Amino acid sequence: MIRRMSGPSLSQDANRRPRVVIVGCGFGGLEAARRFEGCDVEVTVVDKTNHHLFQPLLYQVATAGLAAPSIAAPVRVLFRKQPNVTSLLGEVIRIDAAAREVGLADGTRLPYDHLIVAAGSTHSYFGNDAWSRHAPGLKTLADAFEIRRRILLSFESAELETDPARRRALLTFAVIGAGPTGVEMAGTLAEIARHTLQGEFRRIDPSSAAVLLIEGGPRVLQAMPESLSGRAMEQLEKLGVQVRLNARVTAIDASGIDVQSPGSAAADASTVAASGRIDCHCVIWAAGVAASPLGRLLAQATGAETDRAGRVKVQPDLSLPGHPEISVVGDLALAMSHRTGKPPTPVPGVSPAAKQMGRAAAANILRRSAGKETLPFRYRDYGNLATIGRNSAVVDLDTPAGPWRFSGRMAWLFWLFAHLYFLIGFRNRLVVLMDWASAYWSFQRYARVVSDVEGKPES
Amino acid sequence: MIRRMSGPSLSQDANRRPRVVIVGCGFGGLEAARRFEGCDVEVTVVDKTNHHLFQPLLYQVATAGLAAPSIAAPVRVLFRKQPNVTSLLGEVIRIDAAAREVGLADGTRLPYDHLIVAAGSTHSYFGNDAWSRHAPGLKTLADAFEIRRRILLSFESAELETDPARRRALLTFAVIGAGPTGVEMAGTLAEIARHTLQGEFRRIDPSSAAVLLIEGGPRVLQAMPESLSGRAMEQLEKLGVQVRLNARVTAIDASGIDVQSPGSAAADASTVAASGRIDCHCVIWAAGVAASPLGRLLAQATGAETDRAGRVKVQPDLSLPGHPEISVVGDLALAMSHRTGKPPTPVPGVSPAAKQMGRAAAANILRRSAGKETLPFRYRDYGNLATIGRNSAVVDLDTPAGPWRFSGRMAWLFWLFAHLYFLIGFRNRLVVLMDWASAYWSFQRYARVVSDVEGKPES
Repeated sequence: MIRRMSGPSLSQDANRRPRVVIVGCGFGGLEAARRFEGCDVEVTVVDKTNHHLFQPLLYQVATAGLAAPSIAAPVRVLFRKQPNVTSLLGEVIRIDAAAREVGLADGTRLPYDHLIVAAGSTHSYFGNDAWSRHAPGLKTLADAFEIRRRILLSFESAELETDPARRRALLTFAVIGAGPTGVEMAGTLAEIARHTLQGEFRRIDPSSAAVLLIEGGPRVLQAMPESLSGRAMEQLEKLGVQVRLNARVTAIDASGIDVQSPGSAAADASTVAASGRIDCHCVIWAAGVAASPLGRLLAQATGAETDRAGRVKVQPDLSLPGHPEISVVGDLALAMSHRTGKPPTPVPGVSPAAKQMGRAAAANILRRSAGKETLPFRYRDYGNLATIGRNSAVVDLDTPAGPWRFSGRMAWLFWLFAHLYFLIGFRNRLVVLMDWASAYWSFQRYARVVSDVEGKPES
Repeated sequence: MIRRMSGPSLSQDANRRPRVVIVGCGFGGLEAARRFEGCDVEVTVVDKTNHHLFQPLLYQVATAGLAAPSIAAPVRVLFRKQPNVTSLLGEVIRIDAAAREVGLADGTRLPYDHLIVAAGSTHSYFGNDAWSRHAPGLKTLADAFEIRRRILLSFESAELETDPARRRALLTFAVIGAGPTGVEMAGTLAEIARHTLQGEFRRIDPSSAAVLLIEGGPRVLQAMPESLSGRAMEQLEKLGVQVRLNARVTAIDASGIDVQSPGSAAADASTVAASGRIDCHCVIWAAGVAASPLGRLLAQATGAETDRAGRVKVQPDLSLPGHPEISVVGDLALAMSHRTGKPPTPVPGVSPAAKQMGRAAAANILRRSAGKETLPFRYRDYGNLATIGRNSAVVDLDTPAGPWRFSGRMAWLFWLFAHLYFLIGFRNRLVVLMDWASAYWSFQRYARVVSDVEGKPES
């Protein structure tokens, strides 16, 4: 992307260093800030929480396999040795593109010369926001604790329940959406019911629990090639998960869900006939993702376009049209990936893409500051992987020699070490490896702790 | 204690095993249930939470040194290999001593032949219950998370604050009560301010934080011999804690506390003149302990006496007068310790005492079931230890050769290994040891994660 190096974006006071504000310290924001290490800029990172979350393993916190601190690194610790970064805990509620300033909820005003918005995504209930009370999604640590609480307390309540129908409902778990998170959650839930809790209850048999994975589309893991979806499906069913494809959820309330699925699906041997009411107390939402509300704020402030999911359309160099000083990266950005001989496709909302965008946006800011042209972002897709449960995963790697696809135990080991490798901080890696090793041999899950039986009043 | 083996307590159906209900799975309840391993009784353990908490290390969760699962073991896992134990998650709200039945909040009714009440203690604000909102105490994991949240967010808010007075108040921490918990909290807070957060803030200097330890009595750690209180005081001040003795807190609100201390204390070189208002946002309550409300319920049901702290007065064999089938153990029991040549003193509310009582009460139930006389409980006091901070602790051991008292680094190592030894579960020991080793060398604290910046609406 070629842009003229003139206008207000470079009219900085010669006596001070350029101020970069980064909103969000997920994968995109963190990589952007790190890219500025040792550079002559003043960086301020603002996040709503005090930690960077290793989201790919969040489902393990929700399913009591890991403690929260194992996958959450304090933002301040990450930047301790980077003195040009100031980190602030706060929520951005205002963006003033004309004055070049963002405002936090507590009144703090942060002027910027360059702004990187990396605010990520949140759940979408497709207009049915009332469902969120009954079917929590999994984006934050608080979400993970809430899901952990619901899963563990369902078994506890079932042990106390004397009515068979209510007991049955307490032992029915529904996961909605068969993307990577839904598949991981359903697979792990089946494992917990069949193995982890074995021998611990006196009145119920936890392995009699039903785990349903409900998907609107015709296959699980739709981002994967069809052959791997099939393998994942087989592995899920081997674990005891009841997968229902082409099924549409039409209602969720405190006592269960309503599901519609066309007649054709009932004829398919691999799915359970599924239309009608399912009584269940624990419902997990893994179906819809929407961009952070900050996308709308940004669109209002700059006139940028957003797509249906609320993502902000960016230029090839990740900046906004007419606002070269503002970049959007990660899940919040609608960037296009160009591959030779193929039509452009949106860059997917996965962590490697967010990291690459964060680095690219930071590099372009440095180029602009140095009076150079910005470069277009090129997404490098290394492939896709998803785990299903013990010894089972699917991997689709993009290698120079063509795609390399495999599943089962080898794929699971690959998944495991890939995640450990990218997990931030040596100590975390070691503890997570230890927890996994002990979980593998004992079938136990270490973090089966609910701090608050009552839960939050509002949830 | 000699009691006749007759009356309704033994009129059990010959065809079924005696039913023992244990309320509470702290140290007392857990030890009692374990004592029944392999015995011909049916045990039901009821607890309000799903975990046994290793309370002596709870302050480490509150101060972000340990993750919650490291000190909390799921109750079900502890009893997996003890098939005569059923564990239930529930809150006891009714005790019917005539019908021999306890009732849970969800309506579940548990008939018993023998009842052990081990419901422990809670905070007491000495009649000022409104203080609880502003000065949380430390008894449960939820308490620990709340305190962790307040400590970490105080530093975060100070970094954002521009008004010097408000910033000062955000960097002032008050711990009320200089028993073991108060001393541990104050010592660790000083360490966090001086070491852990070093180099992480750009606008404030965390080491400028003031940590106050406010004690109503004339010395810290009053359960310890006077010489060790003096050593603890020295070590606290070396860590930077400002200790205020003979000081009475007269008000606590959202912006600070009111403290009264007599003129005499101001003249003492080791204390800070302390009367008046102290502006501070983070106040931790470690001053008062009251017995669980179940003590009152039990007194109403059986006519047993309670003391001012709500503890239930028990017979020498830990049963209630007129109710040999009901025992009370742990913090909820007012049992007397008899030492030759000394007047009897109440058994202290510490974990070794609770464990000993739990075992004794269970053994007496087995004796009664076997038609034998019960035995009086004898408290074996092994001594006392308290940690203050890095390399500092005080130890007062009761050995056959007389008391053995020491402090400093040796005492700290002794404290450390004693706690590791008693910590439940091999895995937990290993992880805790690892966390401590890494914290020792790096001054870092692993669990600096706040899952919920907002906190609970009610707190």
